[in-house]
Formats: sequence, C-alpha cells, structure tokens
Amino acid sequence: MTTALLPDPGSTTRTRVRRLPEKAVTDRQTLHGILDAGLIAHVAVCDTRGGPELSAQPAQPFALPVAYARADETVLFHGSTASRLFRLCAAGAPVCLTVTLLDGLVLARSAFESSMNYRGAMVLGHCAVLHGRAKHEALERISEHLMPGRWKEIRHPSEQELRATTVLELPLEECSIKVSAGGPGDADGDADLPIWAGTVPLAETWCDPIPADDLSPELASVPDYIRRWRR
Amino acid sequence: MTTALLPDPGSTTRTRVRRLPEKAVTDRQTLHGILDAGLIAHVAVCDTRGGPELSAQPAQPFALPVAYARADETVLFHGSTASRLFRLCAAGAPVCLTVTLLDGLVLARSAFESSMNYRGAMVLGHCAVLHGRAKHEALERISEHLMPGRWKEIRHPSEQELRATTVLELPLEECSIKVSAGGPGDADGDADLPIWAGTVPLAETWCDPIPADDLSPELASVPDYIRRWRR
Repeated sequence: MTTALLPDPGSTTRTRVRRLPEKAVTDRQTLHGILDAGLIAHVAVCDTRGGPELSAQPAQPFALPVAYARADETVLFHGSTASRLFRLCAAGAPVCLTVTLLDGLVLARSAFESSMNYRGAMVLGHCAVLHGRAKHEALERISEHLMPGRWKEIRHPSEQELRATTVLELPLEECSIKVSAGGPGDADGDADLPIWAGTVPLAETWCDPIPADDLSPELASVPDYIRRWRR
Repeated sequence: MTTALLPDPGSTTRTRVRRLPEKAVTDRQTLHGILDAGLIAHVAVCDTRGGPELSAQPAQPFALPVAYARADETVLFHGSTASRLFRLCAAGAPVCLTVTLLDGLVLARSAFESSMNYRGAMVLGHCAVLHGRAKHEALERISEHLMPGRWKEIRHPSEQELRATTVLELPLEECSIKVSAGGPGDADGDADLPIWAGTVPLAETWCDPIPADDLSPELASVPDYIRRWRR
C-alpha cells in the first residue's frame, strides 16, 4: 500500500520518497521533463567482485557519470565495453540511475531551513544491452539529446567502434522524482529575524563555441543548429 | 602494482581509473579543487535490507544528491537522521561519493570521438558520524561552502534541529579523479571531413537573488557577501 503513495510513475517501497514527502511529484510528465533537461546522469552499481578488497560484504557501491537520453519510457546510456560500470550493468546488476538538476539555493533565516531548489529523478532496475539497429538508434538518440542537429552531419560509428561501445536501456518502471522549488519556509519565530532571506537561482548556459585547433578556415562559421542550443 | 598507476591521491584497484587512463590526474590539489568547486555530490550506498524486494542478492544501489563540503582531507555531508541513505551511511555501509563538474561538450567529426569535458572525483570509504562541536563545525563548513559569509548572520541549529540531522565525515583516503579537457581528437581520416569541430563550454552562474515573499522592506537590499558569489 505504500506504493499507492506514488501511483505513477511506477514506484515501490524502494523508490517512495521517504523524506519531505510533500515534495514528491508523481506526474510522469515531470519525470520525462527532468530526464530530458539533464545532460549527465549518475549511474550506481554494487560491486562484490574484483580484488580481495571487494570480496568482503557488504557490496561496494560505485557511482559514475554517464551521457544519456530518454527514449519514450526508457533511459539510454552508453560507455566503453571494457569499463567496470558497463560490464556490471550489462551483466544484469541492479542499477540506480539518478539525474539531479540544481536550480538554486534557498536562503532561510535559519541554517536548518536553508536548502536547495532542485529537480531530481531516480530510476531503479536492470539494463538491457542493445544490439544492431536498436543500438545504432540509441546512439543517435543520445547524440541528439546532447548535441541536437549534429547526428545528420557527423561520421556515424563504424562496426569496430560499435563493438567497443556498450549501449544500455533502462526501463522507466521503478522511478521516483522529487522537486523542490520556491522560497524559504522559516518557522514563525525565525521569519521576524533581521536577516535577508530568499532564493539565489543557478543558471546553466552554453558559452561561445571554441573551434578545434585543426579546423580549416572555410569551416570557421559555427553551424546554426549549434547556435540554437539553449539551457 | 596497479595502485602505482595512481600513487596519490590514495588509490587502490577499486579506484584506479581503468578507462582512458591518460585522463587520470593524480594531484591532490586537483582533487581538492574539484571537491571545492562542486555544489552537490552524489552519494551511493548498497541496500540489502528493507522489504522482501531488497533481501534478494545482489544488493540494490541507491545514489542520491547531497550538499557537502571538503574540510582538509575529509568530505562532510549532512541530511535527515531518518533518511535511508543517512541511516545506511551512519551504520557503516561502504559509500561512494562522486562529484562531477561538467565543463562542456567536445564536438568531434565522428560520433565515437565526440565526448564531454568534465572534472570528476570519486571517494570510496566508510563515514564517521559527527557529534558535538565537530558536528556544529561541520554544518558551518557546509553552509560556508555553499553560502559563503552567511553563517555569521543566520540562526544556528537548535539542539532539536541537531538531533534531526545526521552529519557524516568521509576521509579522502581512497579516491580517484578524472579530468577531461581540450578539443576533439579526431582520427586522421576524420579530421579532413567538412564538419565543424570544437568545444562548447558550459557555464554555471548565479542569477539575481529573489527576495522571500515575507521579507520586510527594510531588508530588501541583498547583502554584499551574497552579491560576491561567483561560479
């Protein structure tokens, strides 16, 4: 019945937002919006293998940043076939994929009520390894998520490059999202203190593109599709 | 002998950068710089407890964002005493704390060589729970890391608020850092393709502060210490 607290997106006792439940947002559009707005995700796995230092229980977690993209009700991410993280994910280890968008700081009159505004999504599950056309399409999706418009002109992966790349698909089945927005919520006694209070928003912006050292002069003009990128 | 690849900061076979080793940076100043530049960290733990769905092996990882600060050779972070993440960390579970600073996108002529510029730090270990004066000082350190200059004027935590907060200390003993910077490294055959190539830096900036709805008019002026914040 705990899952009834978050009927959608699919949540369980593992993903129910236990802290500050009033900040739990259960709208799938919000989940998609958070995932579509992020540039990197942190993917965590538990490793009980490796050297002797890893054989001891409990398992050692590893959390690493990855490039990703959402496709319908899945998250796609890719990395080196030889990396530990991707070997573990490909082998079926339970994973946690977390995307956090920091929107600003909330300056309350008390240290205790001071906090951050953010949008966060967490996805638990197991990854499927993509092959063939699905793998190629996933790489295009990730490229277009990060660099909209670029896939049509860059050289696509060769067979050898595809072999060196693991592309994983994580379904958006067991998810939680948390959104914290707005101003400080000082207790009555604190609100009267003579201290400035409010929020300081944080903005992420693309800077002017820097051409590669070996870019030929006739290509100096930055393509429009890149100039249109906005954060 | 693998650890010899990363003599410092203290690295082991668990934290040795296995992929793109040429990007491994082993200078402790760089580690400190990455940790000091970040606003949030992602902390991962492996949970084998909880409901039946958690009792199955292997362990389920959870990665959640936290506010943190570096203090000398430790990382401090805090959260609700009642949260699962902090209960597990406080109980001595192995943790992974990861800070990732995304500096921009690297647009190569090939999809395979396209990448991101970033600075990342990963710290593995076990947390110590802080109490008393050390706990209070850690909260000040975290506050001053995120909101420099504010601690001197805000209301400090009450005993009740301190009881509701778990403050953890993770030593910078088993660490890895990875720094990717610069332009694209296209293969010879690709460098001649008629495609714009370069980098698109990503910048994070503080926006104009927004006063709280209940801020009294005589406090409308934003304090100088806040105006001086820079990303």
